[in-house]
Amino acid sequence: MKSDIQIAQEATMKPIASIAEQLNLSTKDWEPYGHYKAKLSYSLMEDLEEKPDGKVVLVTAINPTPAGEGKSTVTVGLGQAMNQIQKQTIIALREPSLGPTMGIKGGAAGGGYSQVLPMEDINLHFTGDIHAITTANNALSAFIDNHIHQSNELNIDARKVGWKRVVDLNDRALREVIVGLGGPKRGVPREDGFNITVASEIMAILCLASSLDDLKKRLSEIVFGYTYDDQPVTVRELKMEGALTLLLKDALKPNLVQTMEHTPAIIHGGPFANIAHGCNSVMATNYARKLGEYVITEAGFGADLGAEKFLNIKTRAGGFEPDAVVLVATARALKMHGGVPKGDLKLENVEALKAGIANLKKHMETLESFGLPYVIAINRFETDSEAELQFIEEWCKQQGASVALTEVWAKGGQGGIDLAYKVVDAIDKGKTSFRHTYELTDSLETKITKVATVIYGARNVEFSSKAKQQLQQYAENGWGDLPVCMAKTPASLSDDPTKYGRPTDFTITVRELSASVGAGFIVALTGDVLTMPGLPKSPAALNMDVGENGEALGLF
Amino acid sequence: MKSDIQIAQEATMKPIASIAEQLNLSTKDWEPYGHYKAKLSYSLMEDLEEKPDGKVVLVTAINPTPAGEGKSTVTVGLGQAMNQIQKQTIIALREPSLGPTMGIKGGAAGGGYSQVLPMEDINLHFTGDIHAITTANNALSAFIDNHIHQSNELNIDARKVGWKRVVDLNDRALREVIVGLGGPKRGVPREDGFNITVASEIMAILCLASSLDDLKKRLSEIVFGYTYDDQPVTVRELKMEGALTLLLKDALKPNLVQTMEHTPAIIHGGPFANIAHGCNSVMATNYARKLGEYVITEAGFGADLGAEKFLNIKTRAGGFEPDAVVLVATARALKMHGGVPKGDLKLENVEALKAGIANLKKHMETLESFGLPYVIAINRFETDSEAELQFIEEWCKQQGASVALTEVWAKGGQGGIDLAYKVVDAIDKGKTSFRHTYELTDSLETKITKVATVIYGARNVEFSSKAKQQLQQYAENGWGDLPVCMAKTPASLSDDPTKYGRPTDFTITVRELSASVGAGFIVALTGDVLTMPGLPKSPAALNMDVGENGEALGLF
Repeated sequence: MKSDIQIAQEATMKPIASIAEQLNLSTKDWEPYGHYKAKLSYSLMEDLEEKPDGKVVLVTAINPTPAGEGKSTVTVGLGQAMNQIQKQTIIALREPSLGPTMGIKGGAAGGGYSQVLPMEDINLHFTGDIHAITTANNALSAFIDNHIHQSNELNIDARKVGWKRVVDLNDRALREVIVGLGGPKRGVPREDGFNITVASEIMAILCLASSLDDLKKRLSEIVFGYTYDDQPVTVRELKMEGALTLLLKDALKPNLVQTMEHTPAIIHGGPFANIAHGCNSVMATNYARKLGEYVITEAGFGADLGAEKFLNIKTRAGGFEPDAVVLVATARALKMHGGVPKGDLKLENVEALKAGIANLKKHMETLESFGLPYVIAINRFETDSEAELQFIEEWCKQQGASVALTEVWAKGGQGGIDLAYKVVDAIDKGKTSFRHTYELTDSLETKITKVATVIYGARNVEFSSKAKQQLQQYAENGWGDLPVCMAKTPASLSDDPTKYGRPTDFTITVRELSASVGAGFIVALTGDVLTMPGLPKSPAALNMDVGENGEALGLF
Repeated sequence: MKSDIQIAQEATMKPIASIAEQLNLSTKDWEPYGHYKAKLSYSLMEDLEEKPDGKVVLVTAINPTPAGEGKSTVTVGLGQAMNQIQKQTIIALREPSLGPTMGIKGGAAGGGYSQVLPMEDINLHFTGDIHAITTANNALSAFIDNHIHQSNELNIDARKVGWKRVVDLNDRALREVIVGLGGPKRGVPREDGFNITVASEIMAILCLASSLDDLKKRLSEIVFGYTYDDQPVTVRELKMEGALTLLLKDALKPNLVQTMEHTPAIIHGGPFANIAHGCNSVMATNYARKLGEYVITEAGFGADLGAEKFLNIKTRAGGFEPDAVVLVATARALKMHGGVPKGDLKLENVEALKAGIANLKKHMETLESFGLPYVIAINRFETDSEAELQFIEEWCKQQGASVALTEVWAKGGQGGIDLAYKVVDAIDKGKTSFRHTYELTDSLETKITKVATVIYGARNVEFSSKAKQQLQQYAENGWGDLPVCMAKTPASLSDDPTKYGRPTDFTITVRELSASVGAGFIVALTGDVLTMPGLPKSPAALNMDVGENGEALGLF
């Protein structure tokens, strides 16, 4: 079987100018980055203001196995299939982080015959967006430390600087560091740490900003620390919002590329799906809505995390409502939820499926709670048996749900035609009425509790004493009207990653809160959340190289 | 008076496609990065192999004031002037680092009417080269720490890891840090530090590599630390050279832009001029030689540092000989060398000039020691008096030297016509015979001593006991045949920054050596060399912003 990079490198791309032409763009609407990538201009959005918006289809999933259920692949494949059935469709996806690429995964931009190209560029530096975020984040850190060092007019307590530095790499040695050592000429010593760039609040801000002005406003509102008397200190007080906006002025422009079937794809922004909201940028989705009749987009992890945040956080920031949802399920993941150990997921086991399908059922109820029509996509893997696939399909039909088998990895858009027709059908029937899980005027405690009970199926929420204190403090700081961003394991509906299927009668424990005031949400941390991954003993990068013709090797 | 950024933003650029056309490039020879920047392809060099090489003109200077003497501006202006007199000329310059731009300088790409455009892009992220270097550098750090954490099969002594992490920012708090804190799951604690990216060995490697293969070879030879029994450990042993090359495969391609007068300029690479060699890349110079009849290029600081390294290090790596040198002098700097305090450099003082001109004299002798013809460029500043300019010119003529007044800041290429004719004349007369200051077969001690005595005019060199031990160790490691890269203050010919003019009868003290085996040189450190600058109390970035039409504000 060919690897993803082999398939990608054998594919023929059209010049990005052709893709732009396909979208009726003129040269002032986009800037080339090489022959196969482009950034879309700010003026384009103004020019398209009067154009009606396309329909938005969100692709989400059941609680996934660690390897993932092919959500991005289904997103790309569905976009290709939509174009095959003459529905003018644009795909909107996240940018991959270099950390996991070099550490474990070796690359991510869909898979098989449903990939976004140029795959190797997208997986390496792409158009530099993430580097710009890294730079802006670390410039802020340098300016904070410099302010404390020079005279500390803002009375910043060095022990309460929550703003961490970042690298877009997996680097466990940077999780906890001490900076400012070496005497009075080398700054003020303090405890610090590095996150991976995609976990940075600036990444979340870039992805929720709806314009350059909005970006600057959000950057200015970042609370990076507290004074000695516990007052929040913002970027505005440090007078850094102009410089940070300048560093990000090109990174905010959405990136245009193409799929293997030349479907236009906007790949832009890639925030973590735990301490951030896990969706591509609002800019990308909004540009895609103006440029396509249909937009296919995705959100990280399962529907309990990615879709919930897409629907409660991103739609509010972006000012739109989705029109339908695709819920990806796989036989592998359902068997895991039915109790099969991870090593045995390739073996047929219909009994386990029967037990595990409760996980799918919960996510269907979740989507119904939002009032959205949905289609279940059974994403076929090579190891699935016919009996397994048939069982899932029958079960869905019994539930009265719309369901389609997708084979987009192996067949490209052709493998998603049935799904495409069913998605169009779901949209044409119309949604009942989209509703959020909570109102912004609900207290933070109520918002968290509603997500935990309605979306996860928890009995209740327990807050640690620290979290309780923070709830009160945040309300006093005027942050009570922000949406909540839940940081929870993606492996389970509960906050215990070993509880598969559909856990019941469980408690969600909120151990700590964290305020991303610039991004515009309050993070509720349940369990341990790693914001800086480590490398395995044999990292993927050890197989990477450059071939004789300058081509990338070892990205898979 | 208009600021540099105002002048730059009022200028009209040609599309980079026109500049490429001007150079007879076809679309496969270059990739666009936006409408006004491009990267040149690897295949272009192969296609041009048979084409004769252009003449190389190096622009250097006397020992500068902290504000600089306008070397880049003269380089750009001379390139423009050469084209005005129908000599097909290409400029090759370094890429600026974001650290100084955000800290003090606010931008650098020439000045006035002799600037390279698009000035704001060049000063911000440009084509991402420096970000790629940051990423490669830090990926190596992460892999080193991971190797030690996982099992340390290479027996790396964590106390002897000399490889530092980098950010391309001024951030004094990162000079000395401790990483790996937080217990056994968070790596192995050790002392570390961050350099500014442009001080990284990878930047030096990128700038000395003559091809992608050579880049990979040099990366593989990096010695990042030592084992418990003091054996050097290389990137090759860590098996990281493939991944690092992959991360740098686009960064190694030279960047094509234009000046305000549409003269083609290749801006590529920007290593520090103290612990590295301070010149744009060999790739840039070699591409420029193939594409132009003349190449105007520069090297950092004064002739004692930049030109010495250009002539002893870069020409060896690049396989070329320069054809002429332009030696930039200013009334301001000569007055400083004559004893005028920095606050009074704007006041006329011919007597001080008479005393300070000894500094110019020494640099003339230096260029003569290389056997190269040179022209002295008196770079006019607004505050210079006619009497001062006349004195310098007369003095040069008395010495029998070729001299030209340049007004390229105020007048663009038109202000450098006289210089251009004199440079062409110097080249046409031909060089006597280019010779290096030392042979590679000289011992490291001899090489250092020759540079100190011949180039700086020192009486002798003293080596600290640590340096003596390292000289022996490096010879035993087989590194004795590498050229030396002197890290010395740029303010003085001596290693004491307060000694202006032409110090005599002084000793150069080498306190420590450092091996950049991948780059291919041994650094000799005299005095303190800062590889991570700090920010001032009111950094330049506090005035930066984005205007209503998305344009950069506050870069000057």
